[in-house]
Amino acid sequence: MMSFAPLSSEPRSQVDDPSSLVMRFGADEPLMMDSGVALSPWQIAYQTYGTLNADKSNAVLICHALTGDQHVANDNPVTGKPGWWLTMVGPGKPVDTDRFFVICANVIGGCMGTTGPASINPATGEPYALDFPVVTIRDMVRAQAALIDKLGIESLFCVVGGSMGGMQVLQWAVSYSNRVFSALPIATAARHSAQNIAFHEVGRQAVMADPEWRSGRYLVEGTRPSKGLAVARMGAHITYLSEMALHRKFGRNFQDRSAPTFSFDADFQIESYLRYQGIAFVERFDANSYLYVTRAMDYFDIAAEHGGSLAKAFKGSATRFCVISFTSDWLFPTSDSRAIVHALNAAAASVGFVEVESDKGHDAFLLEEPEMFAAARGFIDAAARVRGIA
Amino acid sequence: MMSFAPLSSEPRSQVDDPSSLVMRFGADEPLMMDSGVALSPWQIAYQTYGTLNADKSNAVLICHALTGDQHVANDNPVTGKPGWWLTMVGPGKPVDTDRFFVICANVIGGCMGTTGPASINPATGEPYALDFPVVTIRDMVRAQAALIDKLGIESLFCVVGGSMGGMQVLQWAVSYSNRVFSALPIATAARHSAQNIAFHEVGRQAVMADPEWRSGRYLVEGTRPSKGLAVARMGAHITYLSEMALHRKFGRNFQDRSAPTFSFDADFQIESYLRYQGIAFVERFDANSYLYVTRAMDYFDIAAEHGGSLAKAFKGSATRFCVISFTSDWLFPTSDSRAIVHALNAAAASVGFVEVESDKGHDAFLLEEPEMFAAARGFIDAAARVRGIA
Repeated sequence: MMSFAPLSSEPRSQVDDPSSLVMRFGADEPLMMDSGVALSPWQIAYQTYGTLNADKSNAVLICHALTGDQHVANDNPVTGKPGWWLTMVGPGKPVDTDRFFVICANVIGGCMGTTGPASINPATGEPYALDFPVVTIRDMVRAQAALIDKLGIESLFCVVGGSMGGMQVLQWAVSYSNRVFSALPIATAARHSAQNIAFHEVGRQAVMADPEWRSGRYLVEGTRPSKGLAVARMGAHITYLSEMALHRKFGRNFQDRSAPTFSFDADFQIESYLRYQGIAFVERFDANSYLYVTRAMDYFDIAAEHGGSLAKAFKGSATRFCVISFTSDWLFPTSDSRAIVHALNAAAASVGFVEVESDKGHDAFLLEEPEMFAAARGFIDAAARVRGIA
Repeated sequence: MMSFAPLSSEPRSQVDDPSSLVMRFGADEPLMMDSGVALSPWQIAYQTYGTLNADKSNAVLICHALTGDQHVANDNPVTGKPGWWLTMVGPGKPVDTDRFFVICANVIGGCMGTTGPASINPATGEPYALDFPVVTIRDMVRAQAALIDKLGIESLFCVVGGSMGGMQVLQWAVSYSNRVFSALPIATAARHSAQNIAFHEVGRQAVMADPEWRSGRYLVEGTRPSKGLAVARMGAHITYLSEMALHRKFGRNFQDRSAPTFSFDADFQIESYLRYQGIAFVERFDANSYLYVTRAMDYFDIAAEHGGSLAKAFKGSATRFCVISFTSDWLFPTSDSRAIVHALNAAAASVGFVEVESDKGHDAFLLEEPEMFAAARGFIDAAARVRGIA
C-alpha cells in the first residue's frame, strides 16, 4: 500500500504563482465557454521567453499536455524541477528562444495560476470545485487567444504542442486559421478514442471514489484525495509508456533482492516506480483539475463540429502543418496522426508528416528524440524563412 | 461518480457453494506452498461434467482465468448467468462432455468455495485476510493435482485454459509432465510482463486505497471496499478488450443524447459500460482474492525456475501442445505465445500454433471465435484418437 509522507504544503488552492505573469480579465471580458457559461472574472498565468520582434511576427505558442503547465523552459516553482520541454525550447533549440518570442500559458481549468476549479468562485467566496464549468479544448484555445490579443499579437508564427497540447494546436488551426502561420501537432489526435475516454474515466472514478474527495469540496473541508489521485496517475502513467520501454527499464526485476517476498509490498521495480509516480503527482496537481482537464480531452472531436468531416474543418487553411507521431505510442497511435494528415491533404493544406521510430511510447515527445528535434527544427526554420524571421 | 445499489447480500465470506462439489484436506494433508507455508486444513470446490471412463483416460481439466470460477458449463449460482465457457465446453462442443470427463476447480486463493483469504483462519477463528499466504500459479496447480489424486485420476487427457488458466496449463505441463497427455494454453504467456504487473499493481492500489478495505480486515469490520474494487475492475476491463472492439461497440457515442452534458456523468456509452462492469464485479468477487490472484500472475515466470531457459522447463516433455493466440490481444500478445512455441520447439516437444484473426482483444478466448473452436476441436479430436478415447 502506498504511504504518503507528511505533506510539505497545504492543499493547493488558487495561488498566484509569483514566478509567472498573469493576465486578468474583468467582469466586462468574460470567457465565453462551450458549455454556455460566461466565466468572469478569470485570469491566465503564463511564461514568456525571448523577445517579440518589431513587427510581432516571431511569436510561438507552446501548448502544454494534460498535467503540464506554463513552465516549459524554466525551473518549476512547485517541483523545483527543470522546465518540461527544455529539449525543444531554449537558446539554440528547435524552438529557438534567441529567435522567437515564446509564450506558454496554463490551460483554463488548470491549477497553476489560470482560473480553474480550485479558484475562488466570486458567487460563494469558496473554491468553485464542481461548480466550475466543464472545460473544452476550444475553451482552452479561446483563453489563449484572449491572452494573445492582450499581448497585441495578431498572428502567431507557430503553435506547437504534444498530446493534449497537440489537440490545442489543431483547434487553433481550425478556430483561428488566419492567426496561425504554422502548426506543429505532435503525438496527438483530432478526436479522443473510446479507449482513451475509458482510461480517463477510470482515473476520474479513482479520484471520486476517494472519500476525501468530498464530492469535490475537499479544499473547503480541509481533506485531500491523495490516494485516489495517485491511483489515477499510476494507471495513466502506464499508458504514457510502451511495453517495450517498460520491459527495457524494469523487466521483471525485483526491487531489493532476487527473490519474491511473497507479500503485497512493491516487490517489482515497476511497482515501486509507479507508486513513486503516483505520490509525486499528488504533491503538484489539483484533483478537480484532473477531472476537468481529462474531460476536456474526452470531449475533443474536431470533425463532429464540422458535419463529421475533418477535411471540412481544415478547408481553405493557409497554415503550414508538420504532424509528428511515434511508432510505439499506443495512446495516440500513428493512425490518429495519419487521419489528420489525410484530412489536411483532402483540404489541400500544406502538410508534412514524420513518424519517428521510438520504443518510448507516448512520452517520447517529452524525451530525447533526435529525429523529432530534427523534424521540428527543419519545419520551423523553413517556415521562418518564408515569414522572413531572421 | 458510481453509485452502488443497496447490496442484495452480506459480504461474501467463505461459504460452501452448495452447487459445487468440495474436496477437503485435513491437518495431515497440508498444501505445501511456494511461500514455504504448509496450509491446512484446506479445501477445493469444483464442478464435473460427463463421465469418467473405465480406464480413467478421458479426464479434461479446465483452468479458469483471474476472476473466473469452477462454473464453466453450468449456471453460476452467484450471478445466475450461464457458465463462462459454454462455447467451448458441453455436449458436442470442442471439449465434448459426451466424450470427456471434465473437471473445473476454483483456484486456491479464490472466493468460490476453495480456501482463500476470506476463509476462516483456524488459528484465529476469523477470516485470514492478509494472513493468508501469498499464492502462486504453481500452488494453484498443486491444489488441482491433489484433487485429481483424490479422484483417482493418474493422467489427464487434456489441460485447457485461457489467460491465467493458460498459465496453469503451462505449469501443469512443467510440474507434472507425465500426467498431462495434451495441453491447450490459450491467450497466455510463460511469464507476466512488466506492463501487466503494472496494470495489476494499479488495481491492487485502487483496492487498498479504499478506506473500507481496512488493511484487508473488511469482513471482520463489516465494511466493503466496493469502490476501490470497482475501479480496479474498470481499469482491468479495458485491457481485456481492444481499441478496435471499443471503437466498434461504443465509438464516441453519447449515452442519452447526441450532445455532451458538460458534466462528469457517464456521458459516453463507454463510461456507462465500464461503470456497470465495475459495479457488477464487486457483487461477485472478494477484494482480497483479487489481490492474491493478481499477485499469483505477477509472480509467474516458468523460465526463472529453470535457469532462465523456458526450453529447459519443457525438456523431455511427451505432452502434445496446441498454443492459441489472438491478433488483437495486447495483454497477452502473440509474441508471448510465440515464445512458448519456440521453447517447445527447442525442447523437441510436439506443438501446434494457431494465431486467430480477431478484433476482440484478450477476451476473444471467451467469445464466439469459430477459428479457435475449430483449432481446439481438431487438436483435441486428434489427441483423443491417439489415446484411443471413443
